[in-house]
Amino acid sequence: MVDILHRVGVESSSPEKVYDALTTLEGLSGWWTDDTTGSTETGGVIAFRFPPGGFDMEVVDQRPGEAVTWKVVEGPEEWVGTTVGWQLRQDGEHTIVLFKHQGWREPVEFMHHCSTKWATYLMSLKSLLETGVGAPAPRDVHVAFPD
Amino acid sequence: MVDILHRVGVESSSPEKVYDALTTLEGLSGWWTDDTTGSTETGGVIAFRFPPGGFDMEVVDQRPGEAVTWKVVEGPEEWVGTTVGWQLRQDGEHTIVLFKHQGWREPVEFMHHCSTKWATYLMSLKSLLETGVGAPAPRDVHVAFPD
Repeated sequence: MVDILHRVGVESSSPEKVYDALTTLEGLSGWWTDDTTGSTETGGVIAFRFPPGGFDMEVVDQRPGEAVTWKVVEGPEEWVGTTVGWQLRQDGEHTIVLFKHQGWREPVEFMHHCSTKWATYLMSLKSLLETGVGAPAPRDVHVAFPD
Repeated sequence: MVDILHRVGVESSSPEKVYDALTTLEGLSGWWTDDTTGSTETGGVIAFRFPPGGFDMEVVDQRPGEAVTWKVVEGPEEWVGTTVGWQLRQDGEHTIVLFKHQGWREPVEFMHHCSTKWATYLMSLKSLLETGVGAPAPRDVHVAFPD
């Protein structure tokens, strides 16, 4: 079992503001993909769509200002059944975002790609919160092809 | 044992050009850190220095246009003994760079940080090769603090 792990520190924000960006359609569409629909309630399913395809995430757990956990219920074969987790905390001037995409069965090349791509989306989340402007798809940072 | 994995695709380049950026002091200082010294020969040790500290990497293996492997011989405790590997290949218009930082003993928070930071340095490498300008330290992209 191999995981994708990341961390960013967001300036001039708070765990509550980051939590909003992870748990509302407006927030999610500001950093991950314009085409975000569905239910962000616990037990709901959020549909994230990108030009090449997309993911449906079930909202497994949400603790305001602290943590969010999604489970992938539709999407690329390698993603289905994996979990995406976010942990938030304040550390001085920064809101620390710990990210884990867990449950990959094999460290396939697609996983390498997704790891780099997640990093650019975390930077997009950081930018959204710090400047008001993220880089969600289709205005995302391209790391390879197709992405 | 947990690994940091990444992949980028570099446009308008070649495995040989990426290899040069990984195996010459001029290339390495163009995307990772201005302060790169030492020997890039196989068996040599390259010293990478950043404002907060640095790493000494022993060059374990080099196959022109194909692969480079370093072993960390000095640096943060979590890094010493880990290996950093690069694999290169051409796929149509893109040079694919597969990156693995292997041998981490525990998925500590510092590893999350390094995973995100490596992604930004891989994007710096991609930018150097595509545009002639990378973002090496101290002009690197900040993902948290201190970094």
